[in-house]
Amino acid sequence: MQLGIVGLGRMGGNMRERLRAAGHEVVGYDQSPEVTDVASLAELAEKLTAPRAVWVMVPAAVTEATIDGLAEVLSPGDIIIDGGNSRFSDDGPRAERLDRQGIGYLDVGVSGGVWGRENGYALMVGGDQEHVARLMPIFESLKPAGEFGFVHAGPVGAGHYAKMVHNGIEYGLMHAYAEGYELLAKSELVTNVPGVFKSWREGTVVRSWLLDLLDRALEEDPELSSLRGYAEDTGEGRWTVDEAVRLAVPMNVIAAALFARFASRQDDSPAMKAVAALRFQFGGHAIHKN
Amino acid sequence: MQLGIVGLGRMGGNMRERLRAAGHEVVGYDQSPEVTDVASLAELAEKLTAPRAVWVMVPAAVTEATIDGLAEVLSPGDIIIDGGNSRFSDDGPRAERLDRQGIGYLDVGVSGGVWGRENGYALMVGGDQEHVARLMPIFESLKPAGEFGFVHAGPVGAGHYAKMVHNGIEYGLMHAYAEGYELLAKSELVTNVPGVFKSWREGTVVRSWLLDLLDRALEEDPELSSLRGYAEDTGEGRWTVDEAVRLAVPMNVIAAALFARFASRQDDSPAMKAVAALRFQFGGHAIHKN
Amino acid sequence: MQLGIVGLGRMGGNMRERLRAAGHEVVGYDQSPEVTDVASLAELAEKLTAPRAVWVMVPAAVTEATIDGLAEVLSPGDIIIDGGNSRFSDDGPRAERLDRQGIGYLDVGVSGGVWGRENGYALMVGGDQEHVARLMPIFESLKPAGEFGFVHAGPVGAGHYAKMVHNGIEYGLMHAYAEGYELLAKSELVTNVPGVFKSWREGTVVRSWLLDLLDRALEEDPELSSLRGYAEDTGEGRWTVDEAVRLAVPMNVIAAALFARFASRQDDSPAMKAVAALRFQFGGHAIHKN
Amino acid sequence: MQLGIVGLGRMGGNMRERLRAAGHEVVGYDQSPEVTDVASLAELAEKLTAPRAVWVMVPAAVTEATIDGLAEVLSPGDIIIDGGNSRFSDDGPRAERLDRQGIGYLDVGVSGGVWGRENGYALMVGGDQEHVARLMPIFESLKPAGEFGFVHAGPVGAGHYAKMVHNGIEYGLMHAYAEGYELLAKSELVTNVPGVFKSWREGTVVRSWLLDLLDRALEEDPELSSLRGYAEDTGEGRWTVDEAVRLAVPMNVIAAALFARFASRQDDSPAMKAVAALRFQFGGHAIHKN
Repeated sequence: MQLGIVGLGRMGGNMRERLRAAGHEVVGYDQSPEVTDVASLAELAEKLTAPRAVWVMVPAAVTEATIDGLAEVLSPGDIIIDGGNSRFSDDGPRAERLDRQGIGYLDVGVSGGVWGRENGYALMVGGDQEHVARLMPIFESLKPAGEFGFVHAGPVGAGHYAKMVHNGIEYGLMHAYAEGYELLAKSELVTNVPGVFKSWREGTVVRSWLLDLLDRALEEDPELSSLRGYAEDTGEGRWTVDEAVRLAVPMNVIAAALFARFASRQDDSPAMKAVAALRFQFGGHAIHKN
Repeated sequence: MQLGIVGLGRMGGNMRERLRAAGHEVVGYDQSPEVTDVASLAELAEKLTAPRAVWVMVPAAVTEATIDGLAEVLSPGDIIIDGGNSRFSDDGPRAERLDRQGIGYLDVGVSGGVWGRENGYALMVGGDQEHVARLMPIFESLKPAGEFGFVHAGPVGAGHYAKMVHNGIEYGLMHAYAEGYELLAKSELVTNVPGVFKSWREGTVVRSWLLDLLDRALEEDPELSSLRGYAEDTGEGRWTVDEAVRLAVPMNVIAAALFARFASRQDDSPAMKAVAALRFQFGGHAIHKN
Repeated sequence: MQLGIVGLGRMGGNMRERLRAAGHEVVGYDQSPEVTDVASLAELAEKLTAPRAVWVMVPAAVTEATIDGLAEVLSPGDIIIDGGNSRFSDDGPRAERLDRQGIGYLDVGVSGGVWGRENGYALMVGGDQEHVARLMPIFESLKPAGEFGFVHAGPVGAGHYAKMVHNGIEYGLMHAYAEGYELLAKSELVTNVPGVFKSWREGTVVRSWLLDLLDRALEEDPELSSLRGYAEDTGEGRWTVDEAVRLAVPMNVIAAALFARFASRQDDSPAMKAVAALRFQFGGHAIHKN
Repeated sequence: MQLGIVGLGRMGGNMRERLRAAGHEVVGYDQSPEVTDVASLAELAEKLTAPRAVWVMVPAAVTEATIDGLAEVLSPGDIIIDGGNSRFSDDGPRAERLDRQGIGYLDVGVSGGVWGRENGYALMVGGDQEHVARLMPIFESLKPAGEFGFVHAGPVGAGHYAKMVHNGIEYGLMHAYAEGYELLAKSELVTNVPGVFKSWREGTVVRSWLLDLLDRALEEDPELSSLRGYAEDTGEGRWTVDEAVRLAVPMNVIAAALFARFASRQDDSPAMKAVAALRFQFGGHAIHKN
């Protein structure tokens, strides 16, 4: 089928390729002249036959503006799909706004990273059944080949919600492996730490795709000595904890994984300065001066 | 090759079957007359040709006594393999004791649970290279078919150490999924929670064997309504946190997963009674009386 | 000086008494005829000489509506003080709205609970210096007698912000004592748990007002056996964690204290159901059925 | 009464002074010739009239050897008091050993730090009632003047156990303030952070001695800019978490405070290296190279 894609970065560009390889007619728009198929959103709309479907795959910070611009050139009956990392709570208001123009809306959480073009992208979709049905040919081509990798999770917002929780879980999983790695690396007994991780890839309870990747990383750099222990966080982890707080869900594991990322980006910890100050005040304990 | 197995419960019994299917000659001893091949440890020793190898697969609580009894009927040059859930710190002293009798010792962390007989058992081995080499035919048959699932992790103790960390990571992984599950289950937006977990099995960052199992559990009981939120812990999780404390490894994620299991077994929380008492004292906040 | 108070519950009523005892002329309004001094907000405004100052001390849920109603009967030059548990992020927009009518606004975080009438209330104030100066006679009479208990924390919003953090810290402090209590209560060695807490009230690093209260609670009920381990949370704890997430502050301690309150209100833990389900799937571990 | 003290460092030396000021006859022994009263343990024993009482106040690492040496010069009927930071689990075996020589044993957890000489030391005592009774004149003089600051917590070991839990709680309390400090320090609204802490010293729920000390520290250095966020831990915090693990007490708050100290001493986090490695592997996320 025909699809417009707005945003042809690492994700959008790869998705265009995967869809074209599957026989779809894709018209892509991007600010960068090197990758775009058309010169403007208006031209994008022109090249597509109504009722159109346009997939927006841009950084979260510009999603709102992009969709607003897109809505100006689309017509009643068209559908906009937001495949970016939007906060689920933005989806409802956005869908209502578009609905007043007769434009449909689907929110899609997309997982798969740089591996997606080859292996397929996992898709978590929120929106009306009718809109989902219209996009199914696209979803079928984007998703992995097997029986999994696609879910219609609920009404508008549910796709991004599911993706948010996916990422929250991802934070927790990664940090569980990471703590185990640190313990093994400090152990006096285990002399073959990369070998231990590699061995776990089959037959164990902890086998997973993340473990496969960790094995790969340890093959390249057995002590991870080329890396700094520094990690950004990308919104979904924070929103997951915010939601846990809102819905009164105890979430020590995922929150701890998030907080560890915060700490990884600090040159010094103001909290630990306060602890050091207190220890000095009551016990005369040695302090480390700047 | 020939192998003695002491302990023919769920694990030991299945291992005997897997080894026999692979062509090994296995003599098993168990207290239960229905499953044992021989009437006593002495008979077990008799049935095996020296130098013998005997695999002990008994509950941690009786491992020490079992190995002591076994040492009495074995001869210099024999090897004892402890495949149970022993604490790594018991391995060194045990190996030294056996070494004084000329008996070798290997500690093997075994993962695979009820799935091991069919899929193979992941093996993490600690001990001398010479002893490991002698047992390799057995290890080869027990481990999964692929290139992973076996590691010689280091000297005596390293096998149980690696298994301990494996289980600590397992606690963290499970709890990350569990927190995500609870959030999805409470979400007003996601109407198809089991579908979301199922979809994650391909193309996502969080795909894993544990996820496959969670999908299976949700297929059987989509709201897990037949279960109580109660979980035992089996030693390794606690030892992992103890080791983190000893080696000064920050371990908030795995510790939180362990603490959640502790809490799951409490009818009421003494700590929260203290919080309730304080809130009543300073604020006259409503308390719930027993 | 003259002051209006809207809301004469436990807090507002006691504050009226404390202010009158200090010689101020206080006119109070409350929906309840038994405690109110006037029949309506309009009458309240009438009884006060402009420029008026009216202190709002109502539940957070009705603060916005109360202030809107009050603004209708006040005049340019008057000041509204919100002493309730408002979220700091509501203060700015509210102050702007009032400013368009020429009405000033102060946000005041108030601590002291049921003990405040006698000991004084700690006050954390946000707003313009000019408005703070006008209210100083009131603040002076409400606050405790000593040199502490009052701060002008910053511009509008800073008072509630400081109070929010105060409460977040309070959660952490309470839970630290609570965990220590639980450990002592389970110890086989310490036979005099209430005596230990009592002894700590002098000479130790952990002495505090909360400890005094815990001693009091343990005097009344040495094993806290009359209480259930159940605790509500009141907004500020959640907002503190939300702010930590927003500002990338690692906050494991306060978050854990908050999560423990969430857990205390659950009959069963959905997360632990998922853990139990997983353990059953991979290990055939016993599960507790509902 | 008469008392021997072994170890005249910051704590032991101050205690000698406080006891002498109270009229006791104190004979002190220390390796350092500048502070010792006698040349050897033998001379210490000689200078005291049997039945003797000798208080050992030496670093935990040398406590065992010191007590062994002392036992050689003491006689049946004498009492040894260990006031150092021993692990409670060492007390029982030690007391049994001494009991075979007819020597009594008390374990005393001492709190008060550098402030103790003036304000008194809080004492948590474990041991037989008979031995406690004999030492009461000493305890009375060491403890603070008020009605608190002393407890006979239980049999041998209970004193150090109570002190251990005291320190565990202390870790949690300090970190709660520390997290609140960091949040306030990062807030855009609160412009007077030291003023906020100072104001809390009266009328609030969070008032405490630690808060007084934090105010003092912030007076000296309002942004704690002279300090590094680095803190040692001294055994008791670790033992508290170990005990929580042993007794199945959920202890997220105190454990998190301990883990934060561990992290404060790391130049880089091996766990976060693993997280960074994983993020790079699956998402091509930017990594920070060493």
